Amino acid sequence: MRELAQMASGEPATKRSKTDALPEHLSGIPEETKKVLIEIDAVQNEIDGLNEKASEEILKVEQKYNLLRRPQYEKRCEMIKKIPNFWCTAFLNHPQLSSIIDESEEQALTHLSNIEVDEFDDIKSGFRLRFFFTPNEFFENEKIEKEYNLGDTPSTTGTTIRWKEGKNLGKKGDSSSPLSFFEWLSENVDPAHDDIAEVIKDDMWPNPLQYYLLPEMEETGDDFEELIDDEEGLEEVDDEGGSEGEENDA
Amino acid sequence: MRELAQMASGEPATKRSKTDALPEHLSGIPEETKKVLIEIDAVQNEIDGLNEKASEEILKVEQKYNLLRRPQYEKRCEMIKKIPNFWCTAFLNHPQLSSIIDESEEQALTHLSNIEVDEFDDIKSGFRLRFFFTPNEFFENEKIEKEYNLGDTPSTTGTTIRWKEGKNLGKKGDSSSPLSFFEWLSENVDPAHDDIAEVIKDDMWPNPLQYYLLPEMEETGDDFEELIDDEEGLEEVDDEGGSEGEENDA
Repeated sequence: MRELAQMASGEPATKRSKTDALPEHLSGIPEETKKVLIEIDAVQNEIDGLNEKASEEILKVEQKYNLLRRPQYEKRCEMIKKIPNFWCTAFLNHPQLSSIIDESEEQALTHLSNIEVDEFDDIKSGFRLRFFFTPNEFFENEKIEKEYNLGDTPSTTGTTIRWKEGKNLGKKGDSSSPLSFFEWLSENVDPAHDDIAEVIKDDMWPNPLQYYLLPEMEETGDDFEELIDDEEGLEEVDDEGGSEGEENDA
Repeated sequence: MRELAQMASGEPATKRSKTDALPEHLSGIPEETKKVLIEIDAVQNEIDGLNEKASEEILKVEQKYNLLRRPQYEKRCEMIKKIPNFWCTAFLNHPQLSSIIDESEEQALTHLSNIEVDEFDDIKSGFRLRFFFTPNEFFENEKIEKEYNLGDTPSTTGTTIRWKEGKNLGKKGDSSSPLSFFEWLSENVDPAHDDIAEVIKDDMWPNPLQYYLLPEMEETGDDFEELIDDEEGLEEVDDEGGSEGEENDA
């Protein structure tokens, strides 16, 4: 839209003629139409400006409630620590997460004592997942972090897991099969497509009790991918459109 | 959670003993653990309450900006009417929408003179799409509406198209192939899975100019479904979690 704005402002288009400033396939259209397109572009800029302001206000609401929820989440963490196997049970009862937990991983997962999810203060720029483990036979780490930076060049960083000898649950060496939980935990998945991180942040973390209280999942044969496919809509096509008010946990 | 709350409040559980009030598979757990679960449930209710308040505040922001944007959208509509074939061109240049427009439909679409998208005042309960057409050889209607009620029992209503004789573009009679545009326009698709309505409301409507200005799409062989698959994340798994601030057009 740069060119259109330039034409509207009457600035000289140094490198191109005014006609060239429109996309090539539109270079033949009448002057009158061009003029209207420039007017539409100006209104569109006003709309975009309003969208941006709305985003900022919504961000402020989300930030406010992130702060307000923090003490409750901390209280909840302390309580959960008192329940044996809480997180392991909740993970195994979760429709998507259970399907990525190998049988060999279940025992290691019983040592998961605490989870923390921290969104960065400006929310949009990323978040951090922290997994705390009690001493176990599988690895030395007491805390394993995964950090998601979702800025212009998205990246993930994570704690290197110090596996005990012969206990490496991370490497399955089978790149065709979907990631298992500890593979995911020890590898850096493309942050834009890390479904597991999203499920933990946006579904498990807001209410793990509901999964803890479920009777153990029966084997249905549904795997993670299938279940996700069922849940999907068209959300990501939206450029600036279409949030629901109830999605407010960011 | 009803049962847990009841236990916490000390109300008599008339039909069940306190032990039965927990899900069956948890009936054998120690009293101490039960007590903590009830405490967690109480904190979870506080978190849920905060989520609800956040939703309400976000809704108010969205409502405010829906009103603020309205005059700009109206101005834009008036300007767009002056551009020959604006909507038809924008639709044919849109990566998803172009793939559902049959060649036989293109000529009818050149008569699409105006679109209006109205979200209901409380936003969450639904929206209305209005398509205005200039007189044409295909149907009598000057306005075709589709209304999406997204309440407890979602439903769609739409204007019946009064096709001229031999000009019915709606019925392809091939239920296995994806909907074409006029089939979609004349049929009531399940409102919860109406991807076409979502794309029009959340992607085309917020900024049609960007699609109008694109050079005409090359045939890539990508169809609507494939393109949607590429765009999809895990949004709908969120119960109350994970909105981005920039999704604010609702």
